[in-house]
Amino acid sequence: MDIISNRLIEDAVNEFGRLPGIGKKTALRFVLYLLKQKPEDVEGFSNAFIRLRNNIKYCENCNNITDNELCEICTSSKRDHSLVCVVEDIRDVFAIENTNQYAGVYHVLGGIINPMEGIGPKDIKVDSLIERVENGDIKEVIMALSATMEGDTTVFYIFKRLKDFDIKFTTISRGVSVGDDLEYADEVTLGRSILHRIPYENSLVK
Amino acid sequence: MDIISNRLIEDAVNEFGRLPGIGKKTALRFVLYLLKQKPEDVEGFSNAFIRLRNNIKYCENCNNITDNELCEICTSSKRDHSLVCVVEDIRDVFAIENTNQYAGVYHVLGGIINPMEGIGPKDIKVDSLIERVENGDIKEVIMALSATMEGDTTVFYIFKRLKDFDIKFTTISRGVSVGDDLEYADEVTLGRSILHRIPYENSLVK
Repeated sequence: MDIISNRLIEDAVNEFGRLPGIGKKTALRFVLYLLKQKPEDVEGFSNAFIRLRNNIKYCENCNNITDNELCEICTSSKRDHSLVCVVEDIRDVFAIENTNQYAGVYHVLGGIINPMEGIGPKDIKVDSLIERVENGDIKEVIMALSATMEGDTTVFYIFKRLKDFDIKFTTISRGVSVGDDLEYADEVTLGRSILHRIPYENSLVK
Repeated sequence: MDIISNRLIEDAVNEFGRLPGIGKKTALRFVLYLLKQKPEDVEGFSNAFIRLRNNIKYCENCNNITDNELCEICTSSKRDHSLVCVVEDIRDVFAIENTNQYAGVYHVLGGIINPMEGIGPKDIKVDSLIERVENGDIKEVIMALSATMEGDTTVFYIFKRLKDFDIKFTTISRGVSVGDDLEYADEVTLGRSILHRIPYENSLVK
């Protein structure tokens, strides 16, 4: 891949190569694909990203994406506004919404604390979460972050900030995935599954 | 992934989803990445593709990409212009150039014959290859296409078109990959490797 002497190709390959998980070979595949498309289609392709970046708005309450000042979820009267689920990014909002198991509202942090990458508490939306708890009628904060060291660190940090408030502070349960063979579950997950066992009648999906 | 209610996000996800091998989940990852970038960086990202598509030129001789009318390889005096290697696309030119084993010139078809996808001989640059053979001092045409049914069909089609010309018509050799364990090679490849065995002294890399 050293002999890409054409500057236009090289630029385009480098731009695609910035996307997460995309190496030079895949980037070149994308470039060759674009070269086979009509110029107006490539323009449409590219402009979608510029339009996205320049026009996207974030909900002033929960930091979810929105078309207005507040997002659909924050303005919905069907939602339980005393229940706040804290997630890393909007992907997690989509994922949880798709389960149809949650009727509360969200708080999108926009990242998690990651000292290795220089991301501290000030770089994510923690202060606005604390404010929401201070101002409002919030009864429970559910932490729904990744089961990684960074996720756990973030949960612990937020726990410390919120521990003097009169709210319930919970995290989503960790355990063996539904449909997974027990023998393939890793020890830590299996251990937590046993430790946090629940009454059988509660385990049935309603 | 059904609840992407935001039109800007949805458009951008759909555009990324058109790239080969990219599904909705990966597309959404790309979109979230772009949302975290500075607006001017997203503009640079997008404009690289528009610039590429609008300004790229193809060599009038071999259909390789170029900045001028003819590509660097076609204008090079260090190249053997009597030797033409026929490839599917410019990726193959990069790949073969990287081997440093080839000093001839190329002919980029821009595709291969694929009846299932409606790509016939008229959709790829076969006629201009025939013209080059008719006009020029070409002594050998080397077919370097994928070892697939479509590749073999294309080779056979071009062979028929060129068989009355006084040139050598060859294909790159198929065989067990260098570094591969024999026991893991598939039967067809191994069979061809035996059938097309070469004198030992020829097998040594110079």
